[in-house]
Amino acid sequence: MAVSLGELAVRFGCELRGDPATAIERVATLAHADAHSLAFLANPRYRGQLADTRAAAVVLNPASAAGCRTAMLVCDNPYATYARIAALLYPAAPLVPGVHPSAVVAAGARIDPSAQVCAGAVLAQGVVIGPRVFVGPHCSLDRGVQLEPDVQLVARVTLGRDVRIGARTVIQPGAVIGADGFGFAPERHGWVKVPQVGSVRVGPDVEIGANTTIDRGAIDDTVIEEGVKLDNLIQIGHNVRIGAHTAIAGCTGISGSTTIGRRCMIGGAVNVNGHISIADDVLIAGASSVSRSITRAGAYASTFTVEEAHTWWRLVARFKRSAALGARLRRLERAAGLKPADDADARNDQHE
Amino acid sequence: MAVSLGELAVRFGCELRGDPATAIERVATLAHADAHSLAFLANPRYRGQLADTRAAAVVLNPASAAGCRTAMLVCDNPYATYARIAALLYPAAPLVPGVHPSAVVAAGARIDPSAQVCAGAVLAQGVVIGPRVFVGPHCSLDRGVQLEPDVQLVARVTLGRDVRIGARTVIQPGAVIGADGFGFAPERHGWVKVPQVGSVRVGPDVEIGANTTIDRGAIDDTVIEEGVKLDNLIQIGHNVRIGAHTAIAGCTGISGSTTIGRRCMIGGAVNVNGHISIADDVLIAGASSVSRSITRAGAYASTFTVEEAHTWWRLVARFKRSAALGARLRRLERAAGLKPADDADARNDQHE
Amino acid sequence: MAVSLGELAVRFGCELRGDPATAIERVATLAHADAHSLAFLANPRYRGQLADTRAAAVVLNPASAAGCRTAMLVCDNPYATYARIAALLYPAAPLVPGVHPSAVVAAGARIDPSAQVCAGAVLAQGVVIGPRVFVGPHCSLDRGVQLEPDVQLVARVTLGRDVRIGARTVIQPGAVIGADGFGFAPERHGWVKVPQVGSVRVGPDVEIGANTTIDRGAIDDTVIEEGVKLDNLIQIGHNVRIGAHTAIAGCTGISGSTTIGRRCMIGGAVNVNGHISIADDVLIAGASSVSRSITRAGAYASTFTVEEAHTWWRLVARFKRSAALGARLRRLERAAGLKPADDADARNDQHE
Repeated sequence: MAVSLGELAVRFGCELRGDPATAIERVATLAHADAHSLAFLANPRYRGQLADTRAAAVVLNPASAAGCRTAMLVCDNPYATYARIAALLYPAAPLVPGVHPSAVVAAGARIDPSAQVCAGAVLAQGVVIGPRVFVGPHCSLDRGVQLEPDVQLVARVTLGRDVRIGARTVIQPGAVIGADGFGFAPERHGWVKVPQVGSVRVGPDVEIGANTTIDRGAIDDTVIEEGVKLDNLIQIGHNVRIGAHTAIAGCTGISGSTTIGRRCMIGGAVNVNGHISIADDVLIAGASSVSRSITRAGAYASTFTVEEAHTWWRLVARFKRSAALGARLRRLERAAGLKPADDADARNDQHE
Repeated sequence: MAVSLGELAVRFGCELRGDPATAIERVATLAHADAHSLAFLANPRYRGQLADTRAAAVVLNPASAAGCRTAMLVCDNPYATYARIAALLYPAAPLVPGVHPSAVVAAGARIDPSAQVCAGAVLAQGVVIGPRVFVGPHCSLDRGVQLEPDVQLVARVTLGRDVRIGARTVIQPGAVIGADGFGFAPERHGWVKVPQVGSVRVGPDVEIGANTTIDRGAIDDTVIEEGVKLDNLIQIGHNVRIGAHTAIAGCTGISGSTTIGRRCMIGGAVNVNGHISIADDVLIAGASSVSRSITRAGAYASTFTVEEAHTWWRLVARFKRSAALGARLRRLERAAGLKPADDADARNDQHE
Repeated sequence: MAVSLGELAVRFGCELRGDPATAIERVATLAHADAHSLAFLANPRYRGQLADTRAAAVVLNPASAAGCRTAMLVCDNPYATYARIAALLYPAAPLVPGVHPSAVVAAGARIDPSAQVCAGAVLAQGVVIGPRVFVGPHCSLDRGVQLEPDVQLVARVTLGRDVRIGARTVIQPGAVIGADGFGFAPERHGWVKVPQVGSVRVGPDVEIGANTTIDRGAIDDTVIEEGVKLDNLIQIGHNVRIGAHTAIAGCTGISGSTTIGRRCMIGGAVNVNGHISIADDVLIAGASSVSRSITRAGAYASTFTVEEAHTWWRLVARFKRSAALGARLRRLERAAGLKPADDADARNDQHE
């Protein structure tokens, strides 16, 4: 599918610098583009590639235009504009409405005739599938699951009892939404399982990554609000609420009963405790750990970055001896006739 | 299903304060309960909600009873009592014994007639399924798998060759038990795969979370003892043994050949090295890392909690300059005519 | 299957000390071996077990031979030799060529007649399956997937559009290769999905663990080179390239557009940032975090190991008060009439 630069400029509201008749057939990176490819520049890290690219044209912002020798589509948000152009050039495969004969559909499931249910899917009683929904191979939908219009379950998605998924939400393979939360009451001789009688409500325009798990609520529902984006291998505990448009990178875990605000950005491999709340517009660096509530918007971190191992282990050894530093300071302060420092550190030292 | 407060008090050994005829239809949180709901108070964090709840009754302990204005079921362990009441009010769907016609069962598999095998399940030769077992949709059981009575494989559980699962154990969707362990012998030009000839033995009354993986043993079996509770997205390496009633939260990884004691509680996102052992009754804080064996019961941690990012990065910078602090102390000690501190820190400083 | 020690010595190039007629039927650990078992010693941690083992013979290196009282197969790399012997004693189940009747194969898929496609597998248009490939139960191969000879998809592996898997590569259950990468462009009111038009190329002799996810490239392909070994529950972001023979332990996440060198060894639960590169022959300790590129071979770490909790929290409190240490040092330096230390630490202190 080829589109002219002129048509792209008009359709996506860009300023075109170059020949409007140039045909664009595909997208490419700046480094690998050819004369039929459109590239983009959003991350300044790659600005150096602008001089040498062979792209037919580049989508970029006004500040970067000076360094570009090819045709350009100039706009304020080149990454979003690129995304829309790529969606035009690479349309999704059209739905093939109907239910594959190998799918197993319980009596009483309601499937909109415009929806597609693929091979090997299993739909239980009371499932409701809206218009233009795609249910990929090996998906399993337990009783009472409801899918709003245009939901896409790419493949092998498991939805537990009564889970509801909002319109246009995309769920990647292997995700499990609505498994029992981790609820066990301690007793003298082990644990008693706490029935998990809530479910999961996922809003519209959400994306859920591969092999990510979202547990059903213990009593009330676990809630993922509209526009939330979850990467792969994320764990969301029971009763969690994630606010609209928050994005969370892979391998992060959110423990039960925690509330996360709107428009947060949480890095990968972050660990968030249970029963806390995080305000709107919070950024958390990758590999951080959040033990207490965060009440103010802003950027937060608790990450260390690797050093060469011998340097690192020496730093750790010194960290573990930090009480000795305090003792040496006190000895010096006494020798110098200085009043002991009146700060938390000195006070704390004296109690150790 | 409605049950009277009086019946609940008798059946679960609670002291009832209120009208025994009150009908309980469902459970609810203190915040959302109505006049037909039973709530509970176990976490003191929520005690403030007791004054305003509209619950028909609350399960709580004697110490909390004074703050409660509704009917009460008073008992020593309100969380466990609540769990049992909820199980009564929300009984599991009854089994539908038999094998769904779309399931694929190899000749020679033995399935108890009281068991249910759902759509799309695949059972290989030599599989043995005990009484009242539930095998959910898309489960795959390789040769020689044995399921004891009342096992529940919720959906899409994959069990490798010869894996044995104890009575009443529940496995959530996406779990993989008995994949090959990560065993590769280094050679000059790469790795040689080490055959993983052991299997996995899971005891009774275990729960295994969604998308959790437990590798088969390299030679001997990997062993999960009775009553162990594993959350979602946990990795258990080959030859690991986890002691009875230990509970592990999500995203934690236990490397190969490590032994974990009984009744441990391990937080989420913990990393445990291979070839070590952890004593009984050990608590490990979330996001900690365990590199060496732990020989004594107790609580352990190595977690940092987020700070505002500019504060955090300054702390990290200071941490990395900690050698300079030592040098400044030595200079001061010399100037003050103090004998150098005779501690590990000072000695270590002098060798850097 | 029994093999004589003499045959093993000849076939695998070991020096035999003992009776060549001794029959070996199985492998065992040093601790659990009996008179028909072969054990091995590779990890010096287990050397103490050599004196008491009842094994028929032990595979070990010359340095360990003195401590062994049983028959021996002496060689330079006992772990690799053990691996090869175990593969001989425990041959893989032979393929049963053909397509199971419950598998769903689209018109136009090409399956080599020597390949085996198991129950419940779903193969889309344009899939190409090479000789002796094993496609386990519940695997799902989207359009254009290509599997080179001798690939093994153990069970329930999901391969996205156009994913190519190299010869002899083994993929464990639950792995998802080729789901959409985590690409969203921020806009004023949320996120725009960036089409992920690249795919994934996996080289030959790779192993991919259970429930591991490898995202398709945003534009160019994500690439896993030959001989790479990935453990369970690993997340590989879009456009990542992992160099040949690199091994990565479980629960590790590699963010998008990062390049990892050849022969690296990355521990479990490591977090690697996006858009960086790691040199060849880099070792990274488990639970470390890599925020910046690593340009030189060597060992790197940023791990803390657990302490008893009360000790740990005191260390953390002191760490957070480290600015106060600097202030006390400056006060002492002034009192002693010492010129302020001219180092980064002192300079930094003065600006706080």
